[in-house]
Amino acid sequence: MGKIELKPGERLDDLQRNGYKIIQDPEKFCFGMDAVLLSGFADAPENGRVLDLGTGTGIIPILMAAKTKASELIGLEIQSESAEMADRSVELNDLRDRVKIIQGDIKEAGQIFGAASFDIVTSNPPYMIGGHGLQNPDGPKAIARHEVLCDLKDVVAAAAKCLKPGGKFYMVHRPFRLAEIMVTMHEYKLEPKRMRLVHPFIDKEPSMVLIEGVRGGKSRIKVESPLVIYEEQGKYTREIYDIYGY
Amino acid sequence: MGKIELKPGERLDDLQRNGYKIIQDPEKFCFGMDAVLLSGFADAPENGRVLDLGTGTGIIPILMAAKTKASELIGLEIQSESAEMADRSVELNDLRDRVKIIQGDIKEAGQIFGAASFDIVTSNPPYMIGGHGLQNPDGPKAIARHEVLCDLKDVVAAAAKCLKPGGKFYMVHRPFRLAEIMVTMHEYKLEPKRMRLVHPFIDKEPSMVLIEGVRGGKSRIKVESPLVIYEEQGKYTREIYDIYGY
Repeated sequence: MGKIELKPGERLDDLQRNGYKIIQDPEKFCFGMDAVLLSGFADAPENGRVLDLGTGTGIIPILMAAKTKASELIGLEIQSESAEMADRSVELNDLRDRVKIIQGDIKEAGQIFGAASFDIVTSNPPYMIGGHGLQNPDGPKAIARHEVLCDLKDVVAAAAKCLKPGGKFYMVHRPFRLAEIMVTMHEYKLEPKRMRLVHPFIDKEPSMVLIEGVRGGKSRIKVESPLVIYEEQGKYTREIYDIYGY
Repeated sequence: MGKIELKPGERLDDLQRNGYKIIQDPEKFCFGMDAVLLSGFADAPENGRVLDLGTGTGIIPILMAAKTKASELIGLEIQSESAEMADRSVELNDLRDRVKIIQGDIKEAGQIFGAASFDIVTSNPPYMIGGHGLQNPDGPKAIARHEVLCDLKDVVAAAAKCLKPGGKFYMVHRPFRLAEIMVTMHEYKLEPKRMRLVHPFIDKEPSMVLIEGVRGGKSRIKVESPLVIYEEQGKYTREIYDIYGY
């Protein structure tokens, strides 16, 4: 395990995979179940190149490094503090040879990395429209949750630009934006090909949507069985335990 | 009950609502659970005007007549035999004052009825793309199931044309076309606002999607809890019994 130093307010969490750990600062932003479920939903080919747009703590590239045989996983993060913290998690897990954290803007991903340079793009982008009425629109939590610095169109456009033809885009988002997501992905020629709704309980509305698009794919989508989080209050379903790797 | 005459091959089925019955010919086409679930998902305002595109046996306007206080329900059907049979079901149920069956082409609905003339449009259109390789592409079953005489775009365009601003479109379709449905509805300004997936069993992929669009609506969709058909093999769930009105 690499050497790292925790800063005030930071904590170290065990990822239950390959012994990997991650540094987080609860005052700023912690990864959620969303990122874990997206890593479970996504896949990458052996020796593939993977780009995570808006990587935050670096959770998605680190989990994808554990799950897949991708040779290079790059996390792009605009906030310098988050990027620096994610970079320390990479060091901590001895993943420098496969995972890189780059500080930069999603809207410039095409210029930074070059067009059609990735097999896979993942993203757990901000869900909420705009930043109106936010008390602290420049805070790290606001930037991670609200479309302050980038919006859905920016994320989809960047993914479309960076993916090779036939490359796959995996995103987790909120169901209330599903129509907009499909319209935008179609517009940028990232055809939605697979979708799974995540329900807190089986008889409840979904709280998340996992979606896979293929650059240049034909219009035909596989809607999967519901992914249910809780069997009963406080008890995860078997499938959630499996995704978490317990 | 009005007087009617059954033709050879036809049978009379009880709809379990208001004592309504419907004439069907199993050799040609019988309504399915799809139409019943769509009628359960859809609604219509008091004194509203409702148009059903491709009405077949007339099942949807007849069930909507039982469920709602709409003043006028029109079923448009291109196949003359089906239209004539649906018309006899209307007579049979003494619904002539509220339900009308018109023989005509969905692609001409705007000219037949005039633009912006309905509060509600419903449709259970053909699900399968094209009619390639069909043994009998002119048969009534092929026309009801395959896009031989009209396709998804024709149905959505007709609904958009016939609906008043703010009017609602309700459709049942297959999930594999969900992305295309959302893109097409958005394109014709029938914004998808509500969606429910229908699963044969809770842990299985959905077999149908119920979708509501609003003419001129803003992009924000409510994805509802899953509608599950069977509790166990051969036993419907409570919700399905309720929709069927038992």
